[in-house]
Amino acid sequence: MPAADPDDMGVMNGGVAPGYAPSVIENARVAVVGVGNNTSALVQGIAFYRNTGSLVGIHQPQIAGLGVGDIDFVAAFAMSDDKVGKDLHEAVFVSPNNFPRLEAKLRPSGVTVRRGLVDTTEVERVAHALKGAEVLLYSAPSGRPDTARAYAEAALMAGAAFVNTTSDPVARDPSFLKRFEDAGLPLIGDDLASQFGTSVVHHALLRLLEERGLTLVSSYQVNLGGTEDFRNLVENPNTKKQSKLNALGSDKVQIAPLGYLPQLKSQKVAHLNIEAQGWGETAVSLEVRLQVHDPSGAAGVNIDLIRLAATALRSGHGGCPPAAASLMKSPPGTAV
Amino acid sequence: MPAADPDDMGVMNGGVAPGYAPSVIENARVAVVGVGNNTSALVQGIAFYRNTGSLVGIHQPQIAGLGVGDIDFVAAFAMSDDKVGKDLHEAVFVSPNNFPRLEAKLRPSGVTVRRGLVDTTEVERVAHALKGAEVLLYSAPSGRPDTARAYAEAALMAGAAFVNTTSDPVARDPSFLKRFEDAGLPLIGDDLASQFGTSVVHHALLRLLEERGLTLVSSYQVNLGGTEDFRNLVENPNTKKQSKLNALGSDKVQIAPLGYLPQLKSQKVAHLNIEAQGWGETAVSLEVRLQVHDPSGAAGVNIDLIRLAATALRSGHGGCPPAAASLMKSPPGTAV
Amino acid sequence: MPAADPDDMGVMNGGVAPGYAPSVIENARVAVVGVGNNTSALVQGIAFYRNTGSLVGIHQPQIAGLGVGDIDFVAAFAMSDDKVGKDLHEAVFVSPNNFPRLEAKLRPSGVTVRRGLVDTTEVERVAHALKGAEVLLYSAPSGRPDTARAYAEAALMAGAAFVNTTSDPVARDPSFLKRFEDAGLPLIGDDLASQFGTSVVHHALLRLLEERGLTLVSSYQVNLGGTEDFRNLVENPNTKKQSKLNALGSDKVQIAPLGYLPQLKSQKVAHLNIEAQGWGETAVSLEVRLQVHDPSGAAGVNIDLIRLAATALRSGHGGCPPAAASLMKSPPGTAV
Amino acid sequence: MPAADPDDMGVMNGGVAPGYAPSVIENARVAVVGVGNNTSALVQGIAFYRNTGSLVGIHQPQIAGLGVGDIDFVAAFAMSDDKVGKDLHEAVFVSPNNFPRLEAKLRPSGVTVRRGLVDTTEVERVAHALKGAEVLLYSAPSGRPDTARAYAEAALMAGAAFVNTTSDPVARDPSFLKRFEDAGLPLIGDDLASQFGTSVVHHALLRLLEERGLTLVSSYQVNLGGTEDFRNLVENPNTKKQSKLNALGSDKVQIAPLGYLPQLKSQKVAHLNIEAQGWGETAVSLEVRLQVHDPSGAAGVNIDLIRLAATALRSGHGGCPPAAASLMKSPPGTAV
Repeated sequence: MPAADPDDMGVMNGGVAPGYAPSVIENARVAVVGVGNNTSALVQGIAFYRNTGSLVGIHQPQIAGLGVGDIDFVAAFAMSDDKVGKDLHEAVFVSPNNFPRLEAKLRPSGVTVRRGLVDTTEVERVAHALKGAEVLLYSAPSGRPDTARAYAEAALMAGAAFVNTTSDPVARDPSFLKRFEDAGLPLIGDDLASQFGTSVVHHALLRLLEERGLTLVSSYQVNLGGTEDFRNLVENPNTKKQSKLNALGSDKVQIAPLGYLPQLKSQKVAHLNIEAQGWGETAVSLEVRLQVHDPSGAAGVNIDLIRLAATALRSGHGGCPPAAASLMKSPPGTAV
Repeated sequence: MPAADPDDMGVMNGGVAPGYAPSVIENARVAVVGVGNNTSALVQGIAFYRNTGSLVGIHQPQIAGLGVGDIDFVAAFAMSDDKVGKDLHEAVFVSPNNFPRLEAKLRPSGVTVRRGLVDTTEVERVAHALKGAEVLLYSAPSGRPDTARAYAEAALMAGAAFVNTTSDPVARDPSFLKRFEDAGLPLIGDDLASQFGTSVVHHALLRLLEERGLTLVSSYQVNLGGTEDFRNLVENPNTKKQSKLNALGSDKVQIAPLGYLPQLKSQKVAHLNIEAQGWGETAVSLEVRLQVHDPSGAAGVNIDLIRLAATALRSGHGGCPPAAASLMKSPPGTAV
Repeated sequence: MPAADPDDMGVMNGGVAPGYAPSVIENARVAVVGVGNNTSALVQGIAFYRNTGSLVGIHQPQIAGLGVGDIDFVAAFAMSDDKVGKDLHEAVFVSPNNFPRLEAKLRPSGVTVRRGLVDTTEVERVAHALKGAEVLLYSAPSGRPDTARAYAEAALMAGAAFVNTTSDPVARDPSFLKRFEDAGLPLIGDDLASQFGTSVVHHALLRLLEERGLTLVSSYQVNLGGTEDFRNLVENPNTKKQSKLNALGSDKVQIAPLGYLPQLKSQKVAHLNIEAQGWGETAVSLEVRLQVHDPSGAAGVNIDLIRLAATALRSGHGGCPPAAASLMKSPPGTAV
Repeated sequence: MPAADPDDMGVMNGGVAPGYAPSVIENARVAVVGVGNNTSALVQGIAFYRNTGSLVGIHQPQIAGLGVGDIDFVAAFAMSDDKVGKDLHEAVFVSPNNFPRLEAKLRPSGVTVRRGLVDTTEVERVAHALKGAEVLLYSAPSGRPDTARAYAEAALMAGAAFVNTTSDPVARDPSFLKRFEDAGLPLIGDDLASQFGTSVVHHALLRLLEERGLTLVSSYQVNLGGTEDFRNLVENPNTKKQSKLNALGSDKVQIAPLGYLPQLKSQKVAHLNIEAQGWGETAVSLEVRLQVHDPSGAAGVNIDLIRLAATALRSGHGGCPPAAASLMKSPPGTAV
């Protein structure tokens, strides 16, 4: 955080706590597409950690010298009339966003939310707005592959790294990957794996069963949530469900339909059941209830992806860094 | 199973299923101290797997050529008047044993349960009865260290390997370990870690939290069961509780008092709670209910310990084989 | 059970246990439409109680002198080629039925399953087959109101009582009710309330909150099951969901989508959550997991409806007996 | 709330919200013995409801014209040096109290906590301090019957009603009851039944099973908490456990040992299990997890007992009002 003028930084960063130890390298400069709950969690969390010095809930305190507070947002794009034109630190609280307000007092970010692109002729406009950004974090809803690719084009044009958190194929599209590699630009994707979600817990327990020599009989998971993401997935369940099943890798595991329950807001509740057999085919039964904030699970991984992308960009490594690939559900090389 | 006379074997082994593929090496010959639920699960399970050919719930189908059915019991010791004098396959169902009857039809084992030693002058009598046994499995209740050591003396005298499944210190007593090593006899102990119990699941989930970068706030476990072991532990809770806490390795984890609930019979029910924080210090909560047959968890490990002990004995390796040490809670080298 | 010839009865009833105390009045003579899981539970259960003399799980041991074993089936109708032509006691086990086989040894019932009506011109054929039946139990899948009404016509024609367990409107159709009343025939309906299902438990807990002065904040229920009924409801969820919401009577209660999980077979698993506030607006939280056999919940009420219908018929009371109305979700007088 | 001088009231009551509708009758004047979590919940809650006008979590908004905010504390007794001498509104937050701070801003109450009696010669001192009090709420830990009776003597001497929330026998001691009746003074007790605790939920579910005709097989409850009360009960479990068993009224219900888990603070977590059988003896299983603030459950009933006692006193009715008896576990007439 080498800012010549700390006052300007303050405006940009939402304030720096007195005890905060600034890094000796430049903050990562990030543009974000999508100002939903996941961006709210990321933006608020960065300010929170910067203000408090807390390291609670952090997977990697430092990546190549970048701490979790060493991120500056330089641009943001959204589609909603209610968000466009507002300061980023104000827009993250606009409905239907329902991630809670963290304790951090958010001062204005100095970044005004711009209108996202509506057709692919606008790539140039977006690229122009990315001037100065090192990383473009694509955090829009899944299901619009043309839009995802148009933003990736803009990143290529602007010389920025691209991080695709959606399941739309970008990084696992070999032609895109090659163009980023050739340009010496990082391309990270696709489909963010949550820091601590249903799949992580379910997979760990199924693996544990296997390690201990028990035999799986059947298993299911039920996911309930109250975000717009959940509402969308309830209406278009198939892709997500298949993706989850692939992740669990067993035909004995069933995924029940998602339930959209507005009262849960940004929390997800998952019920897991595992029925197995141990010695003498006697029954072993596990019931799990998991409650998490879905957007926190995304932000906890996005903070690593951003830092990996900025670090790779700075060192001139194009393509998808292996450390980032391991955090994605569908990294380069997996089926589209 | 190279028996010259298959008919004798049949009586000894409780029957061999037609499809069963006998191993090309001799069955392990085992004597057992304690005819409680754990021995019931072991004895019944060996017959079950031999009869059915099932591999369900088995951690290691083969250890050095020995399958899970390749065990012959040659002696058994118990203290209860109701068990002494009965055939082993009958004694395992005597009250207060409450492990369920597996599907296996148990033919008489040919082994009559003998009276266990009541004072240490009887070591010689026991040693004599061990004639022909390769392994002495000590599966009595924990809390009588002198008794445990007396049986270990008998094993030394008889040239048999000794497996101590209780928390009484034998294998982690350096002088005992040295005597077994000097005699070229295996000594495996102490304190069996269940194949799939509360500690295994709790530990795996706490480790998962840590791997993913979440911060533990608090955690507890409640254990409920209906066996005599549970009844004893309810009356003498301290050792076990401390042992569990050590295993979990965190001062944020609490173990609630054990509950003896007779209706659970040989099943254990455990409730685990884990409260943690993720990104932005947002709450993550896990509730787990685990239901298992405790004696199955013991038998699923004992079957490996027996085979490891017999294999080491046959190859002349004294002391505690590393593969066995990893299956114990307090292996040699840990504090008494 | 006044049978002149006990041997014939034996064939008809699946056997009478030696200790069984026969009632002094005639068995109820029942025809059933639909040979699914609910009929399997009913038919097997009647034989089970008759054979064992057990009173476990019984709501009303006697209704007007009729015990739970005092039912004779005299006709059965189904649509599946796999069931038509089979003896009723064989047909109840035909796939996709997956209700478990109760302990009862079922001897042939002597009732051959007939083909159900496919269009309403066949009312007369059905009425003819109902000869001798006192009660026609309509236990087919919901959602075919014309079919339901055609069977009701047949009952009218044959002089039998009609019990509609589906949500299709028959008893709450005033014109139908009047015709049965005028004919002195009982008409019981609509939509069976399970003996012990999710709604019963959820409603009781919400009522308890209210009685104790707590304030409901939010609540949800998730229902998972493995029967054909569940599969159908997953595809046509709306009616059922609305019906459940009406039953719970609060706009703070959410019903998550049903999940069809084949491994559950005839069991239903429900997860209920209730969030409330007590003194000082402090939080009160209830999590419930209920596991039941859905067809048992239906049979446990059908056994009462049949006996109420037969009793009313014998005493010449037409229309819906109040004791029966209280067991239905949509009795006469409720909205269609 | 007939105060001539609102300023005095403010000091006494902790502030009156502008929208608060004062009752037309005098506030109840209450002295309290014990300044633990239950008193914290009561004192804070009364201020909270007065300030906010909320009716959330309230069982009876009005009793004979007295609202939940219409209580004035006039004296308080405690044993801890850390509490004696402090203002009541400060003392309720002193460790080991761990009931949360409600949103209410607590102004000083004007009541200084006095030292409780240490031997029975001090009855007169206490009686003197009760001057002006209508009700003496005895909210000390259970297990000191002599102390409970000494305070009851003081109430008799001072002409105040006595409410015994502990399980020590006072109201069910016929001689005491007669003396209060003869003096025209209310005596309410013994042993407060929580507004919404484990017993309430467990009992309701067992009753529901029975109503629906299911047969109970077995049931248990586990109670975990983090208050001093819990710590004390863990060390002296027997009385409480027996009392709970009596309340549930079935020999098939087991109470597991209480667990003291400090991290729960004033929250109680209970796990209930109910195993039953329905139609055809098929299994029905209920698992419940209840989380509540124990002191809220006490305060939610104490607020009614106080108002019932004050109302009875004012109308000259001595003894235990029936409406109060129904809120106690061991009312007059039950065994000591």
